[in-house]
Amino acid sequence: MPYLTKRVGFSAAHFYWNPEFSEDQNREIFRACANREGHGHNYRVEVMLEGEPDPQTGMIVNFYDLEPVLQRAILDPLDHKNLNTQVPFFNDKIPTLENIALFLWEGLSHEIQTIGLTLHRIKVVENDDLYIEYDGALA
Amino acid sequence: MPYLTKRVGFSAAHFYWNPEFSEDQNREIFRACANREGHGHNYRVEVMLEGEPDPQTGMIVNFYDLEPVLQRAILDPLDHKNLNTQVPFFNDKIPTLENIALFLWEGLSHEIQTIGLTLHRIKVVENDDLYIEYDGALA
Amino acid sequence: MPYLTKRVGFSAAHFYWNPEFSEDQNREIFRACANREGHGHNYRVEVMLEGEPDPQTGMIVNFYDLEPVLQRAILDPLDHKNLNTQVPFFNDKIPTLENIALFLWEGLSHEIQTIGLTLHRIKVVENDDLYIEYDGALA
Amino acid sequence: MPYLTKRVGFSAAHFYWNPEFSEDQNREIFRACANREGHGHNYRVEVMLEGEPDPQTGMIVNFYDLEPVLQRAILDPLDHKNLNTQVPFFNDKIPTLENIALFLWEGLSHEIQTIGLTLHRIKVVENDDLYIEYDGALA
Amino acid sequence: MPYLTKRVGFSAAHFYWNPEFSEDQNREIFRACANREGHGHNYRVEVMLEGEPDPQTGMIVNFYDLEPVLQRAILDPLDHKNLNTQVPFFNDKIPTLENIALFLWEGLSHEIQTIGLTLHRIKVVENDDLYIEYDGALA
Amino acid sequence: MPYLTKRVGFSAAHFYWNPEFSEDQNREIFRACANREGHGHNYRVEVMLEGEPDPQTGMIVNFYDLEPVLQRAILDPLDHKNLNTQVPFFNDKIPTLENIALFLWEGLSHEIQTIGLTLHRIKVVENDDLYIEYDGALA
Repeated sequence: MPYLTKRVGFSAAHFYWNPEFSEDQNREIFRACANREGHGHNYRVEVMLEGEPDPQTGMIVNFYDLEPVLQRAILDPLDHKNLNTQVPFFNDKIPTLENIALFLWEGLSHEIQTIGLTLHRIKVVENDDLYIEYDGALA
Repeated sequence: MPYLTKRVGFSAAHFYWNPEFSEDQNREIFRACANREGHGHNYRVEVMLEGEPDPQTGMIVNFYDLEPVLQRAILDPLDHKNLNTQVPFFNDKIPTLENIALFLWEGLSHEIQTIGLTLHRIKVVENDDLYIEYDGALA
Repeated sequence: MPYLTKRVGFSAAHFYWNPEFSEDQNREIFRACANREGHGHNYRVEVMLEGEPDPQTGMIVNFYDLEPVLQRAILDPLDHKNLNTQVPFFNDKIPTLENIALFLWEGLSHEIQTIGLTLHRIKVVENDDLYIEYDGALA
Repeated sequence: MPYLTKRVGFSAAHFYWNPEFSEDQNREIFRACANREGHGHNYRVEVMLEGEPDPQTGMIVNFYDLEPVLQRAILDPLDHKNLNTQVPFFNDKIPTLENIALFLWEGLSHEIQTIGLTLHRIKVVENDDLYIEYDGALA
Repeated sequence: MPYLTKRVGFSAAHFYWNPEFSEDQNREIFRACANREGHGHNYRVEVMLEGEPDPQTGMIVNFYDLEPVLQRAILDPLDHKNLNTQVPFFNDKIPTLENIALFLWEGLSHEIQTIGLTLHRIKVVENDDLYIEYDGALA
Repeated sequence: MPYLTKRVGFSAAHFYWNPEFSEDQNREIFRACANREGHGHNYRVEVMLEGEPDPQTGMIVNFYDLEPVLQRAILDPLDHKNLNTQVPFFNDKIPTLENIALFLWEGLSHEIQTIGLTLHRIKVVENDDLYIEYDGALA
């Protein structure tokens, strides 16, 4: 089946800190990311959908239907936010790329279903040299 | 097996219009894309080949053999063309990214076989935020 | 002075044809671009503004003021349009990158003034390998 | 003279808030950027140097000499920092791209002089669609 | 499972020449690449790791542990080197993208194991239009 | 006047070595680049032309006229070459980005004149983080 991918960007602040670690341990493990005042990134999310094209429109999905889904699952919770202090999912999880992928998968796979489609995979890009791919499978 | 990917670009015009829909329906479903005078894109096609490297050349394919294939299957039919009016495949199909992928798969998988290789997958990129991947499988 | 640049994209169809040339001349001079059914591009426009940052906002311009200007001068006339048949400026001018820059300069420099700023330069990108820069100066 | 440009990236958090404005004014003017928990970006700084190539090395500058300068003027003060709370320059200035350029010009032009070179211009990129250029000139 | 990808670049020289071919055959098969004085590329390697995020750090791998691995398996043997004359693996293999992928897979999959992780796939990019993906499987 | 820029890429090998320096000095000054077996890059050259658009074609230059010029001045001398051993200009000059720009300016400004145009500036890009701009002016 063709897999259609739509990319969306968001800007957010975050930092890495585990309260079970000592201050020294946090600094040794997370280095510059342990600065609790935060730093940030322009994240990019690639949302890969599977589905059969509608023979009447030639489209797996009409973007006018997809956009509110991406708004609710990606932009509303994450864009222009501090991930550590403003996204409840990260109350007890460090907002690494790995955990951001878990958060986005949860919201997107549910929202995508509401428009009758299946989420195949997501890719989250932190910068040109670092990205994660996730399809919901867990060990 | 290693998968080797070669990227090729083409420029084309297209528009979205289903004659079975009313004018109003076309505009409501396809919005700006329903303008029958057309608009266009710089498309990029990534052609992913599978095959074993020839031990004498270290290559899955010599580009001097691949180029005429890409010319025949991608550039000759699509480059600097109006997809709606000049590509017979789209006489009765809307030239969405989904249908462009079906068209390219058909031509490329056949042409690639003529040089003794197997087409593994194609990726067609419409712009930085939208692409499709296809490997010939259908529901 | 700092120069602030905002980038905006549009998709359009065009073709190159001079009615004063014979059919053969048009094909010889404009090659694939002479196909009157049209082809198209994802254009990118970089709008470079000069101005002093407002000491209270730290901004040369607030994007909420700039966006309607870019909408009126770039997107409304050109996005998802056929430049040859739907943009009166190109009734008697070939829609080359050079002439697109002249068109955009005219509209943008006027619109930018209405929000109290000065347009310093524009850059119009047709594809990764081709762009034009223009600042309104003519020989 | 040839102008040599070296690019360097940094990640930082920031937000836009003017304490002289009311809460409502801040939200109306700065919209999503007014979130005082912060958001962030992967910034890119392009440092353009002028100078004559040394005839013995063919180089305007040896990067082994330039790197500590970029470290001191860009990375040490800004990378993995919260611009609002951790960079004194922004105590009374909003950390917009415009003001970040002023900050970087000040530090870089001074540091570059210490290695016998002249800073010609800087470019600071906030995301693919927004950048500022500055050469130290002020109205 | 999430797949985390880290990208690393290296610059190298190479040429294509098979001593079992005649000079004419080499030039006919390898064209410009047969120039034995060499040419070169900025290669990019994307290293895709599989693993479960550590619940205490939220990370599949800490980059401070990954960096020495990438240094040993990619940068030490290949960066700023002539692949034909300075990398023993290419004594009897032509340094095509296909063979570079085999070389990198061998070193990376072994090194990645030493830090308790599994290499899932690598991607090696020679230029914007050409790349290879490899996951260690062979016919 | 509008400035039209065409980009062209070439791949070459080079190394940095000054025979007037001792082996130790060469290694200390040029580090990894002092490896005389060579390494290489995908260079990009942006050729910026000034000129008035021809009112009949809307073009500053027809690419069918420009291509042989770029072939002669850029690709023929540099593409798939070892700059140190195969380009006479570098017999007594180190092939740094600075000197490559001087070489290209000389050839391009002369060749561009033969088609009745003026070369305004060139930009030579060695990798995403390093480039040089040159307009022929010398101290």
